[in-house]
This record gives sequence, C-alpha cells and structure tokens, in this order.
Amino acid sequence: MSDFSLTFPRGFRAAALAAGLKPSGKPDLSCVVSGADCAWAFAGTRSTTAAASVLRNRELYASGQPVRALVVNAGVANAATGRQGAQDNAAMADALGSVLNIPEDAVLTASTGIIGHLLPMDKVLSGIEHLPEELSDAALPFATAIMTTDTKPKTASVTLPGGARIVGMAKGSGMIHPDMATMFAFAFSDAQVPQDALRAAFPGIVARTFNAVTVDGDTSTSDLTAVLANGQAGPVDLPAFLMALEGVMRDLARQIAADGEGASKLLTVRVGGAASEAEALTAARTCCVSPLLKSAVHGSDPNWGRVIMAVGRSGAKVDIEKMQVSVQGIPVFAGKPLAYDAANTSAEMKAASEVVFDIDLGVGQAWGEAWGCDLSAEYVSINADYTT
Amino acid sequence: MSDFSLTFPRGFRAAALAAGLKPSGKPDLSCVVSGADCAWAFAGTRSTTAAASVLRNRELYASGQPVRALVVNAGVANAATGRQGAQDNAAMADALGSVLNIPEDAVLTASTGIIGHLLPMDKVLSGIEHLPEELSDAALPFATAIMTTDTKPKTASVTLPGGARIVGMAKGSGMIHPDMATMFAFAFSDAQVPQDALRAAFPGIVARTFNAVTVDGDTSTSDLTAVLANGQAGPVDLPAFLMALEGVMRDLARQIAADGEGASKLLTVRVGGAASEAEALTAARTCCVSPLLKSAVHGSDPNWGRVIMAVGRSGAKVDIEKMQVSVQGIPVFAGKPLAYDAANTSAEMKAASEVVFDIDLGVGQAWGEAWGCDLSAEYVSINADYTT
Repeated sequence: MSDFSLTFPRGFRAAALAAGLKPSGKPDLSCVVSGADCAWAFAGTRSTTAAASVLRNRELYASGQPVRALVVNAGVANAATGRQGAQDNAAMADALGSVLNIPEDAVLTASTGIIGHLLPMDKVLSGIEHLPEELSDAALPFATAIMTTDTKPKTASVTLPGGARIVGMAKGSGMIHPDMATMFAFAFSDAQVPQDALRAAFPGIVARTFNAVTVDGDTSTSDLTAVLANGQAGPVDLPAFLMALEGVMRDLARQIAADGEGASKLLTVRVGGAASEAEALTAARTCCVSPLLKSAVHGSDPNWGRVIMAVGRSGAKVDIEKMQVSVQGIPVFAGKPLAYDAANTSAEMKAASEVVFDIDLGVGQAWGEAWGCDLSAEYVSINADYTT
Repeated sequence: MSDFSLTFPRGFRAAALAAGLKPSGKPDLSCVVSGADCAWAFAGTRSTTAAASVLRNRELYASGQPVRALVVNAGVANAATGRQGAQDNAAMADALGSVLNIPEDAVLTASTGIIGHLLPMDKVLSGIEHLPEELSDAALPFATAIMTTDTKPKTASVTLPGGARIVGMAKGSGMIHPDMATMFAFAFSDAQVPQDALRAAFPGIVARTFNAVTVDGDTSTSDLTAVLANGQAGPVDLPAFLMALEGVMRDLARQIAADGEGASKLLTVRVGGAASEAEALTAARTCCVSPLLKSAVHGSDPNWGRVIMAVGRSGAKVDIEKMQVSVQGIPVFAGKPLAYDAANTSAEMKAASEVVFDIDLGVGQAWGEAWGCDLSAEYVSINADYTT
C-alpha cells in the first residue's frame, strides 16, 4: 500500500509541499505534470452543489482537448464559495500553467477539505510558485499531500506486458458515497491509448469500482476521478489495458473502504443471482451503507436479518423463497432461517480484517460487489467537531 | 407524551400483556378492537423483503372490506421467515378473531423486533387467549407493549369540534427511514368518515409526516401505518378531520425522531424555494439522514457545509447563487459564505433540544420539512450487539 519506492510512469513528474492550508502543517499542495499531451477520461460528482473544480474539469472534458497537468490542494474544498470560489479555482490552474509554461486549459484542478471556506489564495499562489523546485518521479509525496482524514496514502500500480505502467492514487475516508466518482482517484499511465476508447470504457469501470464504495452514504461535492495516459511507452493491447486499469481502480477503492473514518474492518458484500448488474451493485452497496449492518459488523454480530432489510430497501428484485445469504462462507438463510453456530460465526467475524457477506437474490444471473466498513463510535467523534 | 389518563376513542378497547417474546419480560403482545366495523387506510413498507404482516395487511386493504381489530407483537418481526412465517402470521389473526368472535379477515396484524426468527407460536397463542381479560379503554398499555428499543411510549390525540376524537400511537427508534410508512403508527378515531376519502388523502399525509422521518436511513421490513375510524361519534367535517389526523401523525413522527436510538437532540430541516414538494421533502430528508450532518449536530458544530453537501446529493434542483441556509435562525450562507459568530451559534445549538436548519433552494415556491436526530456513539453500542 505505502510503497516508498513507487514511481510515476515515464514522462510524469510530481511535486508536493506544505502551503499552510492544513492546520497540522502537513503537505497540502501538489501537482502532477506530463512531458507530453495526455489522452484522458474523467468522472465528477453528480451532486447538484458540485465544487468549482468539478465544474471546471467537466467543461474541459467536454472540449475533448488533451491535458498536461493536475494541481491539487487539501484542507479547503472550495465548494459553496460562489463566484469568488470559481475565480480562485481558475487562478490555481492559471498559476500552475504559468510556472510550468503550459496553457491553463491543459491543467486540471482538484480541491478537498472543508466546504464553505474560501481558499487562502496568497498561500496557494505562493505555494504553486515553489512547486517546480520539488518535481520528481516519486509517487508517495503526491499520494500523501492529497490526504485529509485518511490515515494512510493509497496507491496501486501494474506493469503491462511490453512495459507500459499504470500508477493510481486515491484519497478519501469520510463523506464517501461516490456518485460517478470517488473523493479523489487518479491513474497515470505511459501507455498509448485512444482517448475515445478510454472514455467509452471509463463509466463502467467507475461503476464497478469507486461507485461501489461507501463509507457513510454522504456523496461529496468534490468527488472526482481521472485517468491520464501520455503514450510515452507506445501502443498497448486495449482490453488488457482496460482490465489492468480496472484492477488498479478496484485496489484503490478497497483501500478507501478499509480506511473509512473510524473503521476497524473492511466490509465486502457480493451479490449474485440479480436481474441486472445495476441491481446487484445497488443491493450490495445498500448493505454496505446500512448503519445497522455496519454496527453489527463492528460488534461481530452475525445479524443477517439486517442484510435482508438492506436488500429489501435497495429496491432490487428478490425472490425471497430462493434468496440465500452467507456470512464468512457460513450459510445462514436459504428461503428460510438456517440453523448455524452463531457464537462460532461471531468469532470468525471478530478474527477477520475483512467481513464478507455473499447474497444470492434468486432471480437472475447478474452479479456485483461493493465495499464499505464498520461503523464505530470513533466515526462520530471524528465528525462531531470538525470546524469548531 | 406519556399521558397516563389517555383513553381510546369511544367504541375502541385495547389489551396488552407479557407473553414472553421480549427477553426483558416486559409487555410484548397487544390488541385493539372496535365494537363496530371501521373504515380504514393503510400504508406498508416498500421493502422488497417485507414482513408477513405487511403482505397480509396489503391483501386485506385491496379487498376494501372493513376491519374490526389489530393484533401486535414486539420482540420478533416475523420477517424473512418463509412460508412458516406467513402461516404463523395468519394464525395470530385467526386466534384473535376466535377469542373476540370476529372474522379473521377483519383482524390486522403487526410484528416488530428481530428479523429472521420464527415467532414462538406457543407463547403467542397462549397470550392471545388471555388478551380479552385485559381489555380496557386505556391507551398507554397498548402504546407501551408495541415498543422495542424505544425509550418512551409515543401517543398523540386531538378532539374535533362536535366531540369526535383521534388517538394515535407509534413506535420506532432504529431502522427508521420509512418508505410509505414508519415502523408502526396507528391512529384510531370514533369519527364517521368515508373510507374512499380517507384512503385518497392518506398517502399525502404519510409523505409529509412518517415518510419525512429518518433515524438511520434503514427502511424496515415491517413498517406499517394504519388509521381506523369506527363512526361511533357520527359525521365530521372531512377537511377538519384530515388536518387533525395529519397533526396527530406529525406529532408522532417528531416523537419518533426525538427518540431515535442514541439521540440527544431532535434535528429539524425545513426546505423552501423548491421546485416541488417532493424535491423539498427529499432535500430535507437527505439532510436528516446524513451521518456527517448528524455527527455535527451531536457535536454542536455549525458545519453548514454539510447541509450544502447533503442538498447536493439529494438531487433536488438548486440555484446555488440564490440558495440560503440558516442554523437556529442565524444566516450562514446566501449564495456565498456569510460572516457569522461560530462560537455563539455552537452555544445556541448546544443549549437547544431541537436544532433547526432553514434552507431556501432558490428555484421555486414549494416547501417541506423533515425530522431526524443526532448521531452518537451510543447508536453504535445499541446496534453492535443486538442478537449475540
């Protein structure tokens, strides 16, 4: 997970520094820059109160033109900040473009942190001026500078046959219930891939990875995910590339769930026998967001009735007489309650770092998987006193 | 709230006793019976894994015939119990019909408690045999016997001009995010009202009252609400009756939110300036279900950015430049962040038993209101160890 030797794919460099946005004094401003134009795909939050950065990136995406760089700050989300916020966001891109000598509309932006506060632009702009001094091919400084309440940086990488690489970084720990994208997830590759094919495949990959993660059901104003491919390693087999990209995204998605605010366990819910992949994913994710099931997982309580409840409220089609549920591989329901050893099942849940529910809806052939975490008293204490 | 002298409207009697379904030994089996046929309306959970009682009541509702009685047990929800569960549920109605000498299809049923356990029918049937001995017009024994994790019984009543009365009881503390109805809410009236008019008005009343309550976003398998009117007090002015009924339901809905599992404060979110009532209610309820906003309320943190987030994820139409938010009457956002005294606002939240957010979406004229509660560490401890 925290691989100190991890480097960006060829042609990419990154920089990070502490600009003074985080009260802790930790690194909070970072950028990634490519030596060549990148094919890219993007997904941003569906929130109707989306942050300035999401709105601007969406406009750039619609233009179809290549990008070269990304500037990210943590500590202040620059959301619900009105026109001033939009101007500040554009000024960030403008400033990075100036110091790197690339056009401002080749620069993507991302901001995470508290909502409703304006960016301290003196600190941001002075920080951006110093970013070029920090540029290197090391991945960890960037992965660390984008964190907020995360307890660890989240990276994943893969090398394709022929040598092209994909390196991904994500951040996110609370306000995690992505709708089209998660808090932040970036993937960088030196592969040469057609932008149209990348963009066509991206929504499905996001649906099966980041949109299948939930920590608390709260969709952020700032969720965004992007993949940038600069072609420096030449052409690759496209299906192999897309599968590898999905693998990187899935790895990052699971890391986000496992590092959920206050979490002590990863919760994995696999749903099969569904009428469609969308219904399987909805049922799985509704289980992962249920505070009651999350509390049961926290207490290692094999209260599978809460799985029945969550599937029921998801709206997915179910044949309850054919429905099956198991916990840690132990069957507990098959059209009716099954006899099982509750104490032993609880002990197995307690010993595991990942609690798995397998559910068959009994109506079709489609399947899907979602990830979450347990709900602990610590989640409340982390979030009860964030601003004041 | 706990009015010890409260009685049922004329013509209704109720009984409650401890049949041994609750490990605590508290009353857990109850019934209400009317001396005359009742016009009635009903709403049950939209869950696709609805409990046996909900499914049976829905069938009776579709038949359009009048009802005479209601039998309720607490401790075991009789949900996800297969064909045996459906047979047990019918047997409860049958047994009450026998001891009261009324047809079994004039008896509604309701079961609340743990999901996935079969009813101990020996205890239930032997309890039902003794119910007639306990019949009286007192309301509190019934309101108490339907409770599970509730900390107090929930009742509300009103007397109409002319003397007809409406008396309501509700239960619910966790797994509260009703979809068409709440855990349990019953209203009894001696007014004479046309069943068609009652049924036509009921969905709107439920949408603005019980469906606007949320404790944890978890829609139960067993939610149901019903109103029974036996006509013993003669005809009433229908609009006045429906307004009074909505008032009783609203009072009960607020009591459920205030008694949410682990709650220390009632959370009220009023949304105006919406494109439609449905969008106003959705935005208000999404705020009330947000674990992040609920945690902020628990910590008396005026973190209004989480209101912006929750409204954004609700999908309700917003004009963010015209949007306004206030906390306890203190304006904090009007198209942009406003200067306000955060420490003073936090102190006002801390002192209040009800925290109120007023939100104007800036797009229309419709409005709606929803109720929830704060999220505390106690919610987790209540739910981490319910079965084992």
